[in-house]
Amino acid sequence: MVQQERARITRAKIIVGAAEVFERVGFGGASISDILDRAGVAKGALYFHFATKDEVARAVIERQHEIARAGSNAILATPRPAIEHMVLVSIDLAELLVSDPVVRAGIRLTTDTSAFDAPLRSPYEDWIDLFVVLATRARAEGWLADDVDPAVLARFIVPAFTGVQLVSELFTARVDIVDRVRELWWFLLRSVVPVDRRGEAEALLERLVPRA
Amino acid sequence: MVQQERARITRAKIIVGAAEVFERVGFGGASISDILDRAGVAKGALYFHFATKDEVARAVIERQHEIARAGSNAILATPRPAIEHMVLVSIDLAELLVSDPVVRAGIRLTTDTSAFDAPLRSPYEDWIDLFVVLATRARAEGWLADDVDPAVLARFIVPAFTGVQLVSELFTARVDIVDRVRELWWFLLRSVVPVDRRGEAEALLERLVPRA
Repeated sequence: MVQQERARITRAKIIVGAAEVFERVGFGGASISDILDRAGVAKGALYFHFATKDEVARAVIERQHEIARAGSNAILATPRPAIEHMVLVSIDLAELLVSDPVVRAGIRLTTDTSAFDAPLRSPYEDWIDLFVVLATRARAEGWLADDVDPAVLARFIVPAFTGVQLVSELFTARVDIVDRVRELWWFLLRSVVPVDRRGEAEALLERLVPRA
Repeated sequence: MVQQERARITRAKIIVGAAEVFERVGFGGASISDILDRAGVAKGALYFHFATKDEVARAVIERQHEIARAGSNAILATPRPAIEHMVLVSIDLAELLVSDPVVRAGIRLTTDTSAFDAPLRSPYEDWIDLFVVLATRARAEGWLADDVDPAVLARFIVPAFTGVQLVSELFTARVDIVDRVRELWWFLLRSVVPVDRRGEAEALLERLVPRA
């Protein structure tokens, strides 16, 4: 039992250390020995858990997605209109991208579209599935105009968010990410809510994501 | 003169060869010797033009941006409402991302946010500047609602496009990119045009980007 717990801690240390290395130098630039240094674990310990750098990267992406989904699940557990859940889930991920190095590295790896054999799509697919569910409920709650297809909306939100966070990283090291995600919603809510609820939608956004 | 022309051709071959390598394995995974093989040039020829892999990558990004801006300049030379220019410029870039390996590699390098010292922001800044100009004209032409700030719109379009093309690459190797960019504009035009021009905007999009 003690040994199992120790193995778990070692694995977690490797993931955090690897995240820091991947974030700094990317997947291609990262070496196993950098990861060992950063994590403070021995080579044998790393190879006990992971056979290759790819496997380490995959574990970082998985852990990132677990952390992000834990955040979104906490939001989804509060009773609210789905349109509010949609805004809050995206803001939560934006905030995790600022505060959590594993989330940063995991997202970075999923936008690193080559050099890497991991199944990068699955976190995107999972977010799109979640937003299809939320957008469908938002429509039933009267927050989507009749001609807005919840699946098309979900398929746009997730890539748009991806680009907004990426350019925010490039321009400001994500200092402005929450402002930029608020702007995404400013444009998107005007677009998708029934025209007679635009004022309400704008007030909702101000309430959920107050200006800095 | 002949020698200058030869040097120009060699430089162009290196850029195309490097683009193919960067696209396949990313900046971190690319080696100078892979680039030499792919370009079919000698080591001395490469080092005559470029001191480091960073410099090669920077040249790929610059060439990508020249190609993309040549495309957009051809569009901007046709007399049209600015709102049409905005749509067509983005569709042109989407099509170049399918057809041109240097454009693909250059964009890929600019979304590869680490491992790389080049000034990655400048192409984004240039696109944002262009879209500020176009959105300002669109507003003067009555195509933007009074409460839409052209600068904020430009600052959203460019990252949103970036994410849409990136996720399209990840999911379909960009087979669906034009459809996804059309959806971006479907949401965005509804959002930003005056409510009484929504129908016109939808017709405009159908005309400029017919469904496949």
